[in-house]
Amino acid sequence: MNELEKMRHTLSHVLAAAVQELYPDVAFGIGPAIDNGFYYDIDFGTTKISDTDLPKIEKKMRSIIARKLEMKKRLSNKTESLNWARDHKQKYKIELIEELPEDAEISFYDLGDLFTDLCKGPHVKNTSEVGAFKLIRVAGAYWRGDEKREMLTRIYGVAFETEEELEEYLKRQEEAKARDHRKLGKELDLFCFSDLVGAGLPLFTPRGTELRELMANYSLSLRGREGFKKVWTPHITKTDLYKTSGHYAKFGDELFMVHSQVNGEDFAMKPMNCPHHAQIFASKPRTYREMPVRYMEATTDYRDEKTGELGGLSRVRSLTQDDSHVFCTTNQIKDEVKHLVGIVKELYETVGMQNLRARLSYRSDEDKYLGDKKLWEMAQGQIKQAAIDNHLEYFEAEGEAAFYGPKIDFMAEDAIGREHQLATIQLDFVQPERFELEFVNSKGEKERPVMIHHATLGSIERFLSVFIEHTGGWFPFWCAPEQVRILTVNDSVSDYVADIIDVLDNIVLEKPLKYNELRYTLDNASDSLGKKIKRATEMKIPVILIVGPKDAEEKIVSIRLRDKEEKVKLSDLKKYLCEL
Amino acid sequence: MNELEKMRHTLSHVLAAAVQELYPDVAFGIGPAIDNGFYYDIDFGTTKISDTDLPKIEKKMRSIIARKLEMKKRLSNKTESLNWARDHKQKYKIELIEELPEDAEISFYDLGDLFTDLCKGPHVKNTSEVGAFKLIRVAGAYWRGDEKREMLTRIYGVAFETEEELEEYLKRQEEAKARDHRKLGKELDLFCFSDLVGAGLPLFTPRGTELRELMANYSLSLRGREGFKKVWTPHITKTDLYKTSGHYAKFGDELFMVHSQVNGEDFAMKPMNCPHHAQIFASKPRTYREMPVRYMEATTDYRDEKTGELGGLSRVRSLTQDDSHVFCTTNQIKDEVKHLVGIVKELYETVGMQNLRARLSYRSDEDKYLGDKKLWEMAQGQIKQAAIDNHLEYFEAEGEAAFYGPKIDFMAEDAIGREHQLATIQLDFVQPERFELEFVNSKGEKERPVMIHHATLGSIERFLSVFIEHTGGWFPFWCAPEQVRILTVNDSVSDYVADIIDVLDNIVLEKPLKYNELRYTLDNASDSLGKKIKRATEMKIPVILIVGPKDAEEKIVSIRLRDKEEKVKLSDLKKYLCEL
Repeated sequence: MNELEKMRHTLSHVLAAAVQELYPDVAFGIGPAIDNGFYYDIDFGTTKISDTDLPKIEKKMRSIIARKLEMKKRLSNKTESLNWARDHKQKYKIELIEELPEDAEISFYDLGDLFTDLCKGPHVKNTSEVGAFKLIRVAGAYWRGDEKREMLTRIYGVAFETEEELEEYLKRQEEAKARDHRKLGKELDLFCFSDLVGAGLPLFTPRGTELRELMANYSLSLRGREGFKKVWTPHITKTDLYKTSGHYAKFGDELFMVHSQVNGEDFAMKPMNCPHHAQIFASKPRTYREMPVRYMEATTDYRDEKTGELGGLSRVRSLTQDDSHVFCTTNQIKDEVKHLVGIVKELYETVGMQNLRARLSYRSDEDKYLGDKKLWEMAQGQIKQAAIDNHLEYFEAEGEAAFYGPKIDFMAEDAIGREHQLATIQLDFVQPERFELEFVNSKGEKERPVMIHHATLGSIERFLSVFIEHTGGWFPFWCAPEQVRILTVNDSVSDYVADIIDVLDNIVLEKPLKYNELRYTLDNASDSLGKKIKRATEMKIPVILIVGPKDAEEKIVSIRLRDKEEKVKLSDLKKYLCEL
Repeated sequence: MNELEKMRHTLSHVLAAAVQELYPDVAFGIGPAIDNGFYYDIDFGTTKISDTDLPKIEKKMRSIIARKLEMKKRLSNKTESLNWARDHKQKYKIELIEELPEDAEISFYDLGDLFTDLCKGPHVKNTSEVGAFKLIRVAGAYWRGDEKREMLTRIYGVAFETEEELEEYLKRQEEAKARDHRKLGKELDLFCFSDLVGAGLPLFTPRGTELRELMANYSLSLRGREGFKKVWTPHITKTDLYKTSGHYAKFGDELFMVHSQVNGEDFAMKPMNCPHHAQIFASKPRTYREMPVRYMEATTDYRDEKTGELGGLSRVRSLTQDDSHVFCTTNQIKDEVKHLVGIVKELYETVGMQNLRARLSYRSDEDKYLGDKKLWEMAQGQIKQAAIDNHLEYFEAEGEAAFYGPKIDFMAEDAIGREHQLATIQLDFVQPERFELEFVNSKGEKERPVMIHHATLGSIERFLSVFIEHTGGWFPFWCAPEQVRILTVNDSVSDYVADIIDVLDNIVLEKPLKYNELRYTLDNASDSLGKKIKRATEMKIPVILIVGPKDAEEKIVSIRLRDKEEKVKLSDLKKYLCEL
């Protein structure tokens, strides 16, 4: 346990001591250190504790800490320990002690003479060393996580070595809350849910659809450049497909099953697209001349997630993948992977998430991996070379490969420093075998291709949940659902507004996505300009054009961006917007 | 019965007479006139009849016709009729006669003195008046369509008033066979089926995907021009959605049911998109200022068709609709419908199916229609006015409306004269009511919108089945999956080919679909030019560029279209292709 964890763990004892002083009859569960802080589960009996009680408890904690009490360890045997727990009416501690072996050496910690707890430690030596902390929230928690047992009150605290770090953390939490994609999704009118449709099944409004299409089109356009062709496959299939691919044996009980009332047949909703794409590859004889064959498809897969785990777009039942599959020869692997790594780098740079880290996942010596070991080694070498050739920041992880082949997973950092695993490149030696895929090589012999799975965004829904929070809803100009809003100061400018619209109608962005026609609206309602500006700012429109009589007279446009205001000649407007 | 039907009906008697002469022990079922001809169901006992027997039977028919026998009607009573049937061992006729009332006046027709049949008529007077005919095929048919009864042999003939009409018809049949979209789908590598995926679930290859995307994008682009915005909705939903919309009560047993093994919840696959779109409309308060609200989505619906009825793309389980819904006020109906009619006309003109007929389906006085009668009448008036304003060829059909509102169905004629019902515009007064949709009108009161359902292509799969047969696989230049193929005469021209590719890379078609980058390939294999031309022609590539040393020298391109060959200067190539 590192020093910070010791500090956090000690704070959970201080929390318990404070609670005991304030509420003498409580019974304590357990109180560990966790990521960013600590908690303690406590049975308050009939007393109800809420967030409003936290300042009082926190104040008590601070007074205990100020007393610079020592944390002292002592050992005891089972009988004495049980006596202690019974004397103090600590029924949860009794339960914990009873489960220990008869001859156990049981460790206790005394917090000065104030509070004693059954605890393995370790702790800091003195309460003066606990660092900076804050209690943040109260939640319910079943004793031992068992919903048939008592419901305890969990008090959460966050803690860091210094006040600065704590404040930094709290600020980032505030920031994350303000960026919450569920909140922004509603405010910016991007998507909605319907009780009649169900949890985990978002419906995308026009703005959200614009955004998801732009991202998907951009992602696929990068692969189109590398020779990928779009295919289309249905969302359901006979389960035979997954029985052949091997998915059924592994994930059969996680499939959404589809039943035909008319014919009595059973189908499954596709949770991935590789077996479908393999069927298209298999639909006609192939020769080495057409290899690699590259298919891509932005299509929606359905995964049967637990209802409790669904949240906004982070985890959905309907997840749209910007999926693709390469069918290639073994010595084409390196080039294909190299192109895909290049695409990942380009896309994440475009969306402003430059800090990419890649994990190269290799096989270990265990025998759970399928496919020839030599093929694996060769492929792992090619993956690594592709990473080097692309100047990728990577680390190698033995034993992290999928059973069907080595892979690269990409971690991207967002604007507030959180890391998200999004893109992936996976080699697959197993499905080509199971589907008996083959092509005729240059010697006229039948040869088995390798498959390379790749999604750049991953699940578009999950990507959007990250992207919305990364940008805080201030989307880059090229992909903002509404890029420009014209606000009129009064009705006298309508002729000039028509001139401006003439300019906007002729703007087509070519980067990063080609043929991207400008999306603008006009707010010429009879409201005040102030109200119009407020509306546009709330919707986080990247470019606001304010048009008043003076602008009309001088043939200029007053432009308000998020961080600055400018005046541009109408004749320069197109150039200005194309360079944003 | 018109004259042609009489001729066809008489031919079925002649067929029976001929069969009786050739196979004296047969028993006859029934032999009616049908569209384009006639058939007779006959029990041949243990004798097996196939298409190879038809010439012999046809020859016998022609010799009977040449005898110019009269068709004479006579009446009989039930006892005499039964005696006749028993004497002639006609067990099926016995069954038919036994079902008639005891006092029935039963009609027979004598074909000269050659053949007598139980028959209501009417017939032509003499076999010399039967027109032109041809026996085309033998099929099995259960007696009275009951699969538990005897399997009879059905002999089909086609018949027309003149030899010219018959030949025309036969030619068209041949043509239809050559155009069969299932055959062309395979030959042109547009789509495939997989036994592992299942019947009625086509997978689209890169070429087919290109075609379906171009058509869908074109269709949606026309609506985009009229203010429609794309939305996105998931493919499954809780059945609550259809219970509220009313679809569940009507079509609940035709839904594909989806079962969650993880949570035990039940969902359905969406067979249509209107209830989902209604949920997006309902996701926030609406005012008259934003009306009409127009959503569109090319999305795949799932319908549980009977396995036996599935065929190619004509009827599939996964049907992708280019769907849209307008939510508008009652006095916006006319303009909205007018725009939609305009879009239908434009699209079908573009794809070369100009002969559009529209059926305006109104309510009748029956009380099966939901919604206020005055609203209906007003809406019907608006639909009609929209048809007139668009110079539509229309007819009105009272009692043909859906229960929820009046509609327009469009019939388009294909290149070989077949009519297909494809686009539809439907008004809906019921779903807005059931989902309690509303907007605040200019008086500040809550008002219910009207919904207008529209699909221009209808089901994209079904449209493609028609379009592939309509074009015979020779797709218009703008939407051909592969528009141009460059064929090299030999390797000496590779530098010049690079120049040509430079030109092609810079071609983006703007009509009828904007930003349509040229799709070309290069065939520079070491095969003979003849082989390359054969390959390209088999794939029905609209533009073949043949590049030989002489072309390179003169900086020209030899262009081979389907129906002509031309030489064009390289400097004119872009212009030439853009004007195709």
